[in-house]
Amino acid sequence: MKPYFELLTKDEKTKARAGILHTAHQDIQTPIFMPVGTVGSVKAVHQQELKDDIKAQIILGNTYHLYLRPGLEVINKAGGLHKFINWDRAILTDSGGYQVFSLAANRKLSDDGVTFKSHIDGSKHTFTPENVVDTQRIIGSDIMMALDECTPYPCDYDYAKKSLDLTHHWLKKGFEHFEKTKPLYGYEQAYFPIVQGSVYKDLREQSAETIASYNAVGYAIGGLSVGEPAEMMYDIIKIVNNILPSEKPRYLMGVGTPENILEGISLGVDMFDCVMPTRNARNGMLFTQKGIINIKNAKWKFDYSPIDENGTSYVDNQYSKAYLRHLIVANERLAAQIASIHNLSFYLWLVQEARKHILADDFESWKKEIVKQVTQRI
Amino acid sequence: MKPYFELLTKDEKTKARAGILHTAHQDIQTPIFMPVGTVGSVKAVHQQELKDDIKAQIILGNTYHLYLRPGLEVINKAGGLHKFINWDRAILTDSGGYQVFSLAANRKLSDDGVTFKSHIDGSKHTFTPENVVDTQRIIGSDIMMALDECTPYPCDYDYAKKSLDLTHHWLKKGFEHFEKTKPLYGYEQAYFPIVQGSVYKDLREQSAETIASYNAVGYAIGGLSVGEPAEMMYDIIKIVNNILPSEKPRYLMGVGTPENILEGISLGVDMFDCVMPTRNARNGMLFTQKGIINIKNAKWKFDYSPIDENGTSYVDNQYSKAYLRHLIVANERLAAQIASIHNLSFYLWLVQEARKHILADDFESWKKEIVKQVTQRI
Repeated sequence: MKPYFELLTKDEKTKARAGILHTAHQDIQTPIFMPVGTVGSVKAVHQQELKDDIKAQIILGNTYHLYLRPGLEVINKAGGLHKFINWDRAILTDSGGYQVFSLAANRKLSDDGVTFKSHIDGSKHTFTPENVVDTQRIIGSDIMMALDECTPYPCDYDYAKKSLDLTHHWLKKGFEHFEKTKPLYGYEQAYFPIVQGSVYKDLREQSAETIASYNAVGYAIGGLSVGEPAEMMYDIIKIVNNILPSEKPRYLMGVGTPENILEGISLGVDMFDCVMPTRNARNGMLFTQKGIINIKNAKWKFDYSPIDENGTSYVDNQYSKAYLRHLIVANERLAAQIASIHNLSFYLWLVQEARKHILADDFESWKKEIVKQVTQRI
Repeated sequence: MKPYFELLTKDEKTKARAGILHTAHQDIQTPIFMPVGTVGSVKAVHQQELKDDIKAQIILGNTYHLYLRPGLEVINKAGGLHKFINWDRAILTDSGGYQVFSLAANRKLSDDGVTFKSHIDGSKHTFTPENVVDTQRIIGSDIMMALDECTPYPCDYDYAKKSLDLTHHWLKKGFEHFEKTKPLYGYEQAYFPIVQGSVYKDLREQSAETIASYNAVGYAIGGLSVGEPAEMMYDIIKIVNNILPSEKPRYLMGVGTPENILEGISLGVDMFDCVMPTRNARNGMLFTQKGIINIKNAKWKFDYSPIDENGTSYVDNQYSKAYLRHLIVANERLAAQIASIHNLSFYLWLVQEARKHILADDFESWKKEIVKQVTQRI
């Protein structure tokens, strides 16, 4: 039997790794970026485009959103989220915790879990370490996440410590429940614990050690990219990845810019997700190999060149910058569709290119050059 | 040289016709439905989907919208609208008159044209019978429309008569200008006059005779489907089509429901456009061979069957009713994308099916059955 994670190579000069993650639905080439499909749809993108054009291998679903709409009964009767949305590659779901803390109202935390009111209709709900496992069993994601509290930034030490204790307490309950329960649809599901601890070195070390003590098939780093400086984030990733076992995949939650992702890869992270490529697409920001474009700028008004000559998706050469600019300015739906496909294709290109260079043993020099290019405003 | 319009057959029992319209960019199989691409985009639909999935042969552009955004300079420097939006099949543009009367403010009409304020920024503009020809030369549409006043319903006789005189006066000026000017991009453009006259038989007759006296390659019927009963609309189409020369194509503007279109075809109309399939798609209304679906209804919540087993586009079998319902309820962009592709594919299927039955000489009996099916709510 194949291991869950095959580590193919570790870069000599950085901590970057290339591997294959054998999930139930898909063998995922890592490092990988996972497009966010919040409520069962990657916004403005067809599933077919995700597969054929963007070449996504795994997408995210948000448990909080899916639990509220369409609700578990609809997903369960469909035979799980894959069937419901017609997606036969991998799906990762978060635990719902993040959205409870960012969207829901009237939160009350306890050792048992968190009660909250829906941001849609104010109805009252409870997430516990155990029931978010059950929920993700119903969703049928390839990778389920533990319930955690994602601390804000800044966050004082005492709160961060107290919160971390709660996250660890919840993890114990969640992991036990995970081990006691079975998947519903005939394929295996993984369960990833999450390192927290805000920006405090000792808390992060303590958390990484606690998390690593669970025999999970993969681990996540949460609570970053919440407002802290990027250097602080990189420092914490270094600290955490020194402790997490190297033979298991590491998922940096909610990160980030192309530069963040390349730095994360060089620090030994294998998996990333972020709403940035789709959210920024809807606002007219395009990520390209040559730099960042604000397509709303007047300079593109008469630029009839393709959106991205080097782009990997069909939209890049089918539509011009001037046309995309017009669509954004005129508030046409097609703008978000085109820009989302473009940005996601770029993100998937970026991580696969990183992978190639890790395997070719020239990741560090490639990264140095590509970071310069992709971070400049053009 | 081929005639502009090849009339292949006239149905014996009805007035229905099948033909081929030889436009500069596309040989169009009539009767045809033309998806509306208001401001250079059929809302929520990629150009590739229009071609490959929906099988559109001709789409509409709205001169008023395109004139305001992106503006004529952007379109001109692109080499025309086809190149700007990357669409190599036919385009028809209206004259802008309809939107001036439905969207713009502070309208002032005169023999020379109409001044108005933009609904976007309040800026003042003038459309004349001549300059809307020039504008459509710049847009480069395969079929240009004359400037007319589309009267509302109800409309008193005196106003309708006065308005019709103005429309005819404008037509004279517009047609002369059309004949004096040349296309800008190396291919021919047609110019269709428009029959008006509100719901008044004598005015409609007078208008059809006036319009037919111009040696245009095609004619349009405007001012219908603006609130009058359907039977009244059909009566007027009958009157008008008795006068318009049978060897030229007839375009019924802004119509309509699947039933309206089938009735129009049986009355000798060759071309249709309407925002209904896309606008209603965005509200969750699906047109299918079996009837009309309001996908928001609770009855579809657990219906995991394909959107339309008989549908002709890829979305019909890739996505389920329950999933589409969820997307609409959750206000996800993908809902409009899926439903728009579905509805437009259905409209194109409907007219091509009508064409087949006209050619097979069983249009009347087919129409009787299909109207029953497509008009019922399911």
